[in-house]
Order: sequence, then C-alpha cells, then structure tokens
Amino acid sequence: MTSLEIASPLIAIAQKTRAAASKLAVLSTEAKNQAIEAIAQALESATDDILKANLADCEVATADGIAKPLYKRLQLDAHKLRDAIAGVRDVGKLADPVGKVQIHREIDTGLILKRISCPLGVLGIIFEARPEAAIQIVSLAIKSGNGVILKGGKEAIRSCEVIVKAIKQGLADTAVNPDAVQLLTTREETLELLNLDKYVDLIIPRGSNAFVRFVQDNTRIPVLGHADGICHIYIDRAGELEKAVNITVDAKTQYPAACNAIETLLVHADIAGEFLPKIATALQAHHVELRGDERSIKILHQITNATEQDWETEYSDLILAIKIVDSLEDAIAHINEYGSRHTEAIVTEDLAAAETFLGLVNAAGVYHNCSTRFADGFRYGFGAEVGISTQQMPPRGPVGLEGLITYKYQMTGDGHIVTTYTGANAKSFTHRDLD
Amino acid sequence: MTSLEIASPLIAIAQKTRAAASKLAVLSTEAKNQAIEAIAQALESATDDILKANLADCEVATADGIAKPLYKRLQLDAHKLRDAIAGVRDVGKLADPVGKVQIHREIDTGLILKRISCPLGVLGIIFEARPEAAIQIVSLAIKSGNGVILKGGKEAIRSCEVIVKAIKQGLADTAVNPDAVQLLTTREETLELLNLDKYVDLIIPRGSNAFVRFVQDNTRIPVLGHADGICHIYIDRAGELEKAVNITVDAKTQYPAACNAIETLLVHADIAGEFLPKIATALQAHHVELRGDERSIKILHQITNATEQDWETEYSDLILAIKIVDSLEDAIAHINEYGSRHTEAIVTEDLAAAETFLGLVNAAGVYHNCSTRFADGFRYGFGAEVGISTQQMPPRGPVGLEGLITYKYQMTGDGHIVTTYTGANAKSFTHRDLD
Repeated sequence: MTSLEIASPLIAIAQKTRAAASKLAVLSTEAKNQAIEAIAQALESATDDILKANLADCEVATADGIAKPLYKRLQLDAHKLRDAIAGVRDVGKLADPVGKVQIHREIDTGLILKRISCPLGVLGIIFEARPEAAIQIVSLAIKSGNGVILKGGKEAIRSCEVIVKAIKQGLADTAVNPDAVQLLTTREETLELLNLDKYVDLIIPRGSNAFVRFVQDNTRIPVLGHADGICHIYIDRAGELEKAVNITVDAKTQYPAACNAIETLLVHADIAGEFLPKIATALQAHHVELRGDERSIKILHQITNATEQDWETEYSDLILAIKIVDSLEDAIAHINEYGSRHTEAIVTEDLAAAETFLGLVNAAGVYHNCSTRFADGFRYGFGAEVGISTQQMPPRGPVGLEGLITYKYQMTGDGHIVTTYTGANAKSFTHRDLD
Repeated sequence: MTSLEIASPLIAIAQKTRAAASKLAVLSTEAKNQAIEAIAQALESATDDILKANLADCEVATADGIAKPLYKRLQLDAHKLRDAIAGVRDVGKLADPVGKVQIHREIDTGLILKRISCPLGVLGIIFEARPEAAIQIVSLAIKSGNGVILKGGKEAIRSCEVIVKAIKQGLADTAVNPDAVQLLTTREETLELLNLDKYVDLIIPRGSNAFVRFVQDNTRIPVLGHADGICHIYIDRAGELEKAVNITVDAKTQYPAACNAIETLLVHADIAGEFLPKIATALQAHHVELRGDERSIKILHQITNATEQDWETEYSDLILAIKIVDSLEDAIAHINEYGSRHTEAIVTEDLAAAETFLGLVNAAGVYHNCSTRFADGFRYGFGAEVGISTQQMPPRGPVGLEGLITYKYQMTGDGHIVTTYTGANAKSFTHRDLD
C-alpha cells in the first residue's frame, strides 16, 4: 500500500467493507436471511427516529427551495417506511443467487471442475433523494452476499444516517459484520469512490441521465445502468390500428418520465393517413405535444416540425416525435441508428414482419404488440430490480439479483499436473458433465 | 451522422461490418456452418498464396532483425496452416451458442417473455505476429454470429491480407456477406478502432500485458482479456509434500510464459523447514531462479532476497518468489492483496482448509491439489478459447464462444398495456415459467 493510499480515509472504509464482504460471501442462505430479518426489525424499532430525521431533512430542503418532485421523493412517511420494511422481508424470500453450480464437469478421473455463482464483492451505490432506496439496496446487497458502500443525496443525509445506523445495529447480533454496510455523505467522496477500482466491483448510479453518463465517463469500475432510454414503437402497415393506439398511448403517457416510455413513433406510410389522425386525437387528449417529420405534418397540419435533434432526444415528458417510414427495413434502420438499445416495439399482425423486427432490432428488449413500459424487473418476474442496462454485454435489460453476482471456477484434483496431458504421450481429458 | 464521422474511412468500414453482422446474427446454424466450411475450402485452395505471402513477411522481418521468438510465431508453414484449417472445421462442429432460450415465461395470459442468446454484434480483435490467429478468430466470430474487424501485427501484414482475401472469397457464395470480415493494417487504425464504441461491441486484445493495459485504458468498449497473470500456490501445513513439489514444478516450469504459471509460492511456516529444500532442489533442476523473503532465506541460504516489488511482478520467466506464512488466513490475505484474480491454488490434505481457501480467495479460478496451468478453455472443455478474463463480472476466467454472445428479451403480446396492471384495480401477473 502506498502512502497516498493510506492518506485517504475512504480507502480504509473500502478495505473494511471488503474484509466484511469476503466473510459475508460465504455465509449460508439462512444466515443471510436472519440478517435481513434483523434489519427489518431494527428499522421497525427505529421508525420514530427515521421519521424525525426525515422531517428535519424536509424542513431544510423546503428552506433551500427544493423542487416539488424532488421533495416528494425525499419525503418518507410512516406508510412509505412500512412498505420499505415489507420490501426487506420480500428480499429475504427471494431465492439465494449465490452457490449455484453452473458447470460440474469431470476433466479427468479425480480432476473435477465446478463453476459456482458467487458475489461480486463490494457494490458502490450512488442514489438521489429517496432515502428508502438505501433500505432496498442494503437488503439486496446482503441477500446477494455483497458489501455495499452507499452514497445518498445530500438532501437525504439525516434520513440516510439514521437508516444506516439502524441497519448496522440490526446486523450487530447477526453473522453479517456491520462493516459490510457503509454510508458516505459528501460529494467529494463520490469522486473518490469512482477511483476505488481495487476495492469496488460494481457501481450502480441511480439518478439523471447526465449523472449516469458522468459516472460512466469517470470510472474504470463497471457501471450498471443506462444513460438514455430512447425507445420507439413502429406501427407496421399490417398493424391493427386500435391496438396501435392503445399501446402507443400507454407507452407514452402511462409514466412519461420512465426510461421505457417511448420518445419516437414510427408509422408505415401505407397506414399513416388513417392512423395518424386517430393517434393524434388520443395523445392530445392526454396533453401530449406532437412533433412530426415533413410527411407527418402533411397529414397532421397543426403539429410542429421535428428536427434531427428530436430523434436523438429522450424527452422524459409528454412530447412525442413522429416519423413516417416506407418499410419495415427503414423502421429498423432508424431504430438501430437512434435507439439507445433499451426497448423497442412493433405493432403488426404480420408474424413474418414481427420476426424480422425482433431479430434485427438491436436492443435489450424487442417487443411485439405490447407496450414498452413492460421493461422492468418486477414485471419480468425477477422479484427485485437493481437497474436496467443498455450495454451490449450481459447483464442486459432489467437486472435482478443476478446482476450482483459473478462466478468462479473451482477445480479439485489429487496432484494433477498439466505435463501429464501434453507432449507425445499426452493423456486425454474425459470432459464428462456430471449430475 | 456528423461530417467528422463521414471523414473517417474506418467508420464506413465499421458500418459495413455492422450491416453484414446484423444479417449474420439471424442466420441458421446450418447456414453458418456452410460458411465455415467454405472458409476452410477457400483457405485450402489459397494455401500456396498464403505460404508465399508468409515467406515474404518472414524475409522482411529477418531483414528488420526480428527477435527469434517473434519470428517463430510469425512463421506459417504448410503444417501449421493445415492445423489451422482443421481448427476451422472443429469450430463448425461446436454447438451454436446463438438462439438458446434462457428464460421462457408467461407474464400474463397471452403475454410471453423469452430471453434468447444472440450475438454481440461486431468484434474488434487486435493480435500480434501469429497470422493463423486470424483464421481461428474469423471462424469463431462467424459461428457466434458476429462481424469481426481484425487488426493484425504489421510483421504479418502480407500473410493476413492473403488469408482474409481467401476468407472473403470463400464467403462470397454463402449466406454470410463477406463484409462481415474486415482487416485493418495500420497502427493508426488501432487507435481509431478503440474509439468506435458506437459500432464495435467487444475488443479482444491479444498481446503483451502492457498492450492489453493500454487498450483497457484507451477505450470505452468492453475489453475481454487480462493485463496480469500473477498466480500463487499455497502449500498448507497439511499439504502432502510430494504432491506439492510436483504441482509447483508443473505450475512454474511447464510453460513459464503462460499467464496461468505461478509467480509466487506461499509456504506454511510449520512445513517450510522440510519442504523448501525439496522444492528448491526440484526447481533448480529446472533452472528456476528463486527469490525469498527473509524467513525463506534462513532456510535456503543461497537464494536472493525478494522485495515488495517481487510480490507484484509477473515474471513470465523461470523465476519464482517464495514467502513463508504463518496461517491459511495470511496466505489468503497475501493472495487477495497481490494476486491478479486469475488462478490460485492450495495444496493440502485438510478439506476444511481447502474449502476455506476456495471460498475466500477472490480469483476466477480457485484450485485444490492441482496445477494452475489447467486454467484454459480447451482444458475446461469449452472447445475454443477466445481469451481469459480476470475482471470480476462475467465472463470471467477462460472464455469460450459464450463470451461472444449476449441475450435479448423478446416479449410478445396481443395489445397488452401496463395500465391494466397498475392502480386500484390492477390485474396481477401470472409469472409462470413455460417449458
């Protein structure tokens, strides 16, 4: 260790977390579940303190003139806290992702290879105002056998401190060392955390697109998350128009700030004349602002002009860009050029067209005749969601507990050496899968 | 597309590769295997041209005073080429990694989720002198449905050009567009390739540790590979000494330049007095230079002093550092501090000690009573190896074809929208696994 490293208190914290995490990694499912129940109970006991701390956070935030949506996310009432504690117990009920034997193979007589799922090590989680996020994250980290360094938003500092204190008290009498859970509170520490690639194995940023991109650009640690959610629906010429209207309205308006809401609607030229007036009426009833390419404007005269910029923008708002395309291939080309590889949908009754779309569109989710809003770990049945990834390599799309684990190869022999299997008289491997 | 992008011929190449790859991605196993057989035949037909081009490369290299080991890797004789072509046909026989259904789940009646393995897209492979590497890489890329941009070493430029020309000719009459395979030849293009994160999904650098680290530090594209292979063997106090000698000699001397060869030997203090003289004799018979900590030197008087630097060095040579430790825990702590998370072994007859070691050591491979040299895709039975990864997240360890694929979620509905499943009268999901 260099003197520079000793100088940083964060390194000492990370080392403690890592040491505690390496013990946590090999605990039984029962021991981890007991720790999770202890956390739930400790949070219940600390309810008054947590709510009081949150009230203080809210007062300071109000005095600072916090924006209303942020205030709503910051606010933690008894009801929200009860739900969060119920969520902890739900995590306890999830299947343990650790210790699964993925490969079990005889390499030669007496030489056995196993690939076994194991925790990543230490997670670095940077989240915004919502203090109950800390509760969910810690329970997921412990269930998956990982240590966790939390960095909460500065607005929520008092709430997070009381929550983490309660969690550590809860862990004190369990097999999980409370050092496995750490809370950072200053902005400077965020940057330092991003440099700890020796001690932190995965960063999960929960915040704005700009923040996620900042994190991606400023760390060598793998980042789970996505900077953009530019999703499309393509209405094929063989699309059933009523379905198309319902799906489009849902995908745009059901929760426009979500990353899986659509930003651009692509419409086949053959049905644009009939479909565009219908969808415009339906969307405008939901107060959606429409922006169209030149050909759409010829049909929907009152809408504004969409520019190149619009195809690249995640509005996260009640705005939708519309483009008419001449073919399925043009739709796919537009999506592969401008989409953020999140979730893309086609509405069509033509199964061959659907198959082509699902095959050729490059995205974590490719949908046929349903809303892009289904892209979510809970809706997929993963029980919990740690993030949605738009990277090409796994884990991709909505990520459950599986995203917090890795694997190692365990090989057991009885003095086996490679020399035996090389050269003129090389012995052959058996390579026989067991079980 | 910006004017800057149009200015780069490499972007145009990458776009062509990507377009060809997206068609290749959805080809049947049969179509891909036919293309692989066509490649094998085209290479057979081009044998004379390939050998002639290689001769020219070798002459230039000799005139340039190339180092002998590099010359040997550059040289491609009829025998090596025949083996490489046989290797192409072997790849044809591997199971197709694409199109596997990993999840098949009913989300609700008529709403079906599938997670299906699919190619990554475009691979960027940067390799050194060995021209036959291009042959193996192309066949693996096509089998896994990926386009590939190759950058060969400048020494092998003539060989690679003739090889890739033959491959493209072979592909001309198949379902695979020859654009799926590209060859770059200048050093400038390497740097440009690393910037193409929009078009290239995975970089596989094959070269020196310094080169791999350079690549990791200069791209946002995921990199498959490892910069260091600092592996250890720990001889426990319950280790059987004859096994320990055989395994240590194999792991150090069988191929010292390999990343899975050991660099440091850890020995429990209780057996050091008996074991160290034995292992020193055996290793010195193989001309291994030994460097020891102070306590080892008290036993093996003639060896040189190991410094902090030695614990951090991958010698890739017949040099071994030795350290005496007082406990299993000290051995694990040393490995977790200095190891590069590649492959680590314990020699012991104490099953509890072995279990602790396999559980607590953080490495892609954790071995009991066998040589670290087994860490290899072929030895693991993967049929092919695209690289060995020491990163924490999957793919980790020796990586076969599986490392060249990802997955996407395909959802099929009949007008399903999320609004149905939210709010006061929310419908429940069924989340029923099918098959």
